[in-house]
Amino acid sequence: MNENTIKQKFGKTIRYHRRLVGISQEELAARTELHRTYISEVERGERNISLINIIKISKGLGVNASTLFEEIEEGEHKE
Amino acid sequence: MNENTIKQKFGKTIRYHRRLVGISQEELAARTELHRTYISEVERGERNISLINIIKISKGLGVNASTLFEEIEEGEHKE
Repeated sequence: MNENTIKQKFGKTIRYHRRLVGISQEELAARTELHRTYISEVERGERNISLINIIKISKGLGVNASTLFEEIEEGEHKE
Repeated sequence: MNENTIKQKFGKTIRYHRRLVGISQEELAARTELHRTYISEVERGERNISLINIIKISKGLGVNASTLFEEIEEGEHKE
């Protein structure tokens, strides 16, 4: 799994959970105190997100970070 | 869980698994193509490590990133 693939898989997993919760990028940005543009870039796989922001976003989505990584490892949320 | 606590818990989890595998910081650095100093700072909770480096280190330790996060969430490896 190369670096772009990792970032893209992470982004798709975030987007999947955000839609599952039924909130906009703006709402997730508000919940996490991150910029909406940053959320958008993370979802598009354009950001090498840090540990702290992984935890912030997972909390904002009400999901464990371990669950996000499990889903990435299992190849879920490809689209 | 504040930001320093997150970084420290992540670092202790990395150190636990490195010792479990029985390798030095130098060996982990060689396996991951990261600097030994960087590995040392991550283990001490001084670095806000990125997604790509989380994956590199978990591969270098032969453990899933999801497992590392599970252990952090469950409060293992406090020392």
